Amino acid sequence: MAAISAFLADAGANIVSLDQHSTEQTGGIFMQRTIFHLPGLTAARDELEREFAQRVAEPFGMDFRLTEAAKPKRVAIMASKEDHCVLDLLWRNRRGELDMTVAMVISNHPDLADQVRPFSVPFFHIPANKDIREQAESRQLDLLRGNVDLVVLARYMQILTPRFIEEVGCPLINIHHSFLPAFIGAAPYRRAKERGVKLVGATAHYVTEDLDEGPIIEQDVVRVDHRHTVEDLVRLGSDVERLVLSRAVLWHCEDRIIRYGNQTVVF
Amino acid sequence: MAAISAFLADAGANIVSLDQHSTEQTGGIFMQRTIFHLPGLTAARDELEREFAQRVAEPFGMDFRLTEAAKPKRVAIMASKEDHCVLDLLWRNRRGELDMTVAMVISNHPDLADQVRPFSVPFFHIPANKDIREQAESRQLDLLRGNVDLVVLARYMQILTPRFIEEVGCPLINIHHSFLPAFIGAAPYRRAKERGVKLVGATAHYVTEDLDEGPIIEQDVVRVDHRHTVEDLVRLGSDVERLVLSRAVLWHCEDRIIRYGNQTVVF
Amino acid sequence: MAAISAFLADAGANIVSLDQHSTEQTGGIFMQRTIFHLPGLTAARDELEREFAQRVAEPFGMDFRLTEAAKPKRVAIMASKEDHCVLDLLWRNRRGELDMTVAMVISNHPDLADQVRPFSVPFFHIPANKDIREQAESRQLDLLRGNVDLVVLARYMQILTPRFIEEVGCPLINIHHSFLPAFIGAAPYRRAKERGVKLVGATAHYVTEDLDEGPIIEQDVVRVDHRHTVEDLVRLGSDVERLVLSRAVLWHCEDRIIRYGNQTVVF
Amino acid sequence: MAAISAFLADAGANIVSLDQHSTEQTGGIFMQRTIFHLPGLTAARDELEREFAQRVAEPFGMDFRLTEAAKPKRVAIMASKEDHCVLDLLWRNRRGELDMTVAMVISNHPDLADQVRPFSVPFFHIPANKDIREQAESRQLDLLRGNVDLVVLARYMQILTPRFIEEVGCPLINIHHSFLPAFIGAAPYRRAKERGVKLVGATAHYVTEDLDEGPIIEQDVVRVDHRHTVEDLVRLGSDVERLVLSRAVLWHCEDRIIRYGNQTVVF
Repeated sequence: MAAISAFLADAGANIVSLDQHSTEQTGGIFMQRTIFHLPGLTAARDELEREFAQRVAEPFGMDFRLTEAAKPKRVAIMASKEDHCVLDLLWRNRRGELDMTVAMVISNHPDLADQVRPFSVPFFHIPANKDIREQAESRQLDLLRGNVDLVVLARYMQILTPRFIEEVGCPLINIHHSFLPAFIGAAPYRRAKERGVKLVGATAHYVTEDLDEGPIIEQDVVRVDHRHTVEDLVRLGSDVERLVLSRAVLWHCEDRIIRYGNQTVVF
Repeated sequence: MAAISAFLADAGANIVSLDQHSTEQTGGIFMQRTIFHLPGLTAARDELEREFAQRVAEPFGMDFRLTEAAKPKRVAIMASKEDHCVLDLLWRNRRGELDMTVAMVISNHPDLADQVRPFSVPFFHIPANKDIREQAESRQLDLLRGNVDLVVLARYMQILTPRFIEEVGCPLINIHHSFLPAFIGAAPYRRAKERGVKLVGATAHYVTEDLDEGPIIEQDVVRVDHRHTVEDLVRLGSDVERLVLSRAVLWHCEDRIIRYGNQTVVF
Repeated sequence: MAAISAFLADAGANIVSLDQHSTEQTGGIFMQRTIFHLPGLTAARDELEREFAQRVAEPFGMDFRLTEAAKPKRVAIMASKEDHCVLDLLWRNRRGELDMTVAMVISNHPDLADQVRPFSVPFFHIPANKDIREQAESRQLDLLRGNVDLVVLARYMQILTPRFIEEVGCPLINIHHSFLPAFIGAAPYRRAKERGVKLVGATAHYVTEDLDEGPIIEQDVVRVDHRHTVEDLVRLGSDVERLVLSRAVLWHCEDRIIRYGNQTVVF
Repeated sequence: MAAISAFLADAGANIVSLDQHSTEQTGGIFMQRTIFHLPGLTAARDELEREFAQRVAEPFGMDFRLTEAAKPKRVAIMASKEDHCVLDLLWRNRRGELDMTVAMVISNHPDLADQVRPFSVPFFHIPANKDIREQAESRQLDLLRGNVDLVVLARYMQILTPRFIEEVGCPLINIHHSFLPAFIGAAPYRRAKERGVKLVGATAHYVTEDLDEGPIIEQDVVRVDHRHTVEDLVRLGSDVERLVLSRAVLWHCEDRIIRYGNQTVVF
């Protein structure tokens, strides 16, 4: 911490905020997020990175990443028929709540086109199902590769192959409509009703090869009772889904999240 | 509903409150809880029950149960070493929050004796573990049978056999230290930390032969983050455990809960 | 309760659900909401109402109201520049979550026209401020009177006169952006920040002549901390506002709410 | 930040964690809490403080305080008749959850003696009311002055004079049984019921000369509805009170709280 602070002070930077976390009391992994202000950063960036690597990162055995807050993340949203998550993200972005530009919305159904396009965001309909998964993913990859820094699965109801996850070349965030690890897989609200739970929830997580097993970013719940039908659970849960997903996307776009192992640190 | 209301009005009873629930829009099971005031109920009770059975319950194919709110439930609490759930119940009962008399506390460890006895509640130490399960349960049953209307497992860390559950002759409520059905079984807080969840919870449920699978009465959660160790999760979770368990015991003692299938209605 | 049940049973109605509440253990006001199914209700309605008044309501000194669930409420939404509440209501209604038809949106600013009209809802711009309050209200009343069953103030930032409230001839629901009775009046988020509160909230209430003093329907809060600016509070609070307002409108449209004195019962 | 980190590194200290906050983007007050490990700190403390003052604090115009985490805070608890807050603190401390030693409990009523003394904590009964306020406070000050680092008002229902607050020589934390600034003053639950709120809350704050106006440390709420009586609100609220107070005391004892103006930063 001292070495980083000294390096930034030397470079003329003003530290705006600093968060750090150690996974263990002694030893373990040490993580730090530092926001600093440095006039003329864009021009000096390459040199700054090179010097930091040499003078700080290498001696201390650090991994590091330097991102410019002034450059919003380029994001693609993938959805199916449900509108609540994708519309909430587009609406929040229009209000200026999320630090991103939405490059495109991709859906395996045409239904959402009329709702998406008024936000001046391109909508691409690429049919997808079990039988044409490979072709669909190839078309999706053609659109995504190199164009986006993040893919958000906003209730996209198709399974993605490990090849897609690898080739897309950027992180993916998914919203699962249950409080993971409860109700992994399909129809979580129906199974929640059958189990008679008193809260239903939603989970935003990074996508890995293992379905619903990636690092959790955010979760929340809402109270339900015996009077609620499965349809009520779907309705109440969708409020939690859009809220949880928007928080996860916000935090990712602000570079607040560090992944390690199968967990996340959210500063 | 009309038949019950008419019967009670005829009998001179004043309906204080009424709750009802149907499991389906049409058909399904219809459940109702009616609180009424009837002077001289204790003396007239047997006759009232007989007449209700004949004139209302039989013609409509109802199951029914008549309990007197003035008679507090007799409760046994079973615990191991953790004090937070058992003390919270004893403390709430002393304040008059719970409508019960605590007949005894049974523990497989002697540790809690000094904390329990100042509440003027008998404390019985019955060692129990895998190897002496049958003998232990026989001794427990000797103490419990006929003496209690409810057994509360307030972090009792031994598995109970189906024979015990059947022979004890009254309902059992257990507190599980996770948000079921997540983290069924042992060490839920450690597994929650490993999975990186952002909320931990607790579940109060009726005990059935299937471990952690009985009808859920109440659940709640508390927010955690990457800075919390497993010990922090245990500490934060224990606040949720005692709160959730106390609500479940309160509602049971007020006859608010109806079990059907593997679910509960809480009026 | 018995008289109502018997009357409905006689009329051939099937009681679907029943909720009741007494304001006192003995005496006080008794309130009941009964949902029943009766084929051919629309045709028989007038006669049913007359008979109920004569045979039940008058003898027992009841006030009553009979509404048909099949007829959605006609609703006007009034807003100013903020879009989150009005859009959330329109969006939920399009999804079929709210049992209402939105007859019009009235705003004292033109800004929201492009966002409202794609929902096929008329948008009327009626400038309003302190100096032209009377004329503005007259124009609003011309549009509203006789056309709507409910007016929702979805962040409408003008004060309404007692005359308007009386002449509009239907209930009004307002969303206030604080946890009432804390921070009555203007700029609640700024004052919340100055006071250093750890939660901010929102309150939906019926509108009466006294600003922010009407019967509360619903409230909720969200956690904040020292890092949040006033702008953050506005952003986080607006999620609570739209959620709280949509619940209040849903419950009103389902005739779940009974007002008495300055309070509400929400069945 | 760089100067502090460098100073600590020079001194051979290992920074365990660091939190910082600026009240404004530029300018404003900068606050930082640094936990470090330094073998032999107790012996070297005076010199370390002197050097830090000279080399870091003075040049940068800092206020600073150095506390040893290994020394638990000495705490006095003042209460009246309600047991839930004082018992919860004593019980949590016995479990090892709070980093403090309870030097004494002072009450203006004798009722809690039997509940406090089993925790091996001295209980002092000092009658107090409006008429004997000065004498009572003098006796309290005789017991407290020099003996404690914190006074916790755990539902102590007497007003304290500005003289007492000044002369006691340490911070005081109070629990108020409402969500401040709603329901300042007496009988908040009764007034909450009369206003018909849908949530009741509790607030822990530092005590200043202005009743219920001191810097807020923590707040929380619980949902209520029309069925709850004032007594129910008292019961449900007391769960929130003890939880909120215990969090505030924990954070204070861990030196997580920085006061500035009428606000708190909780790291």
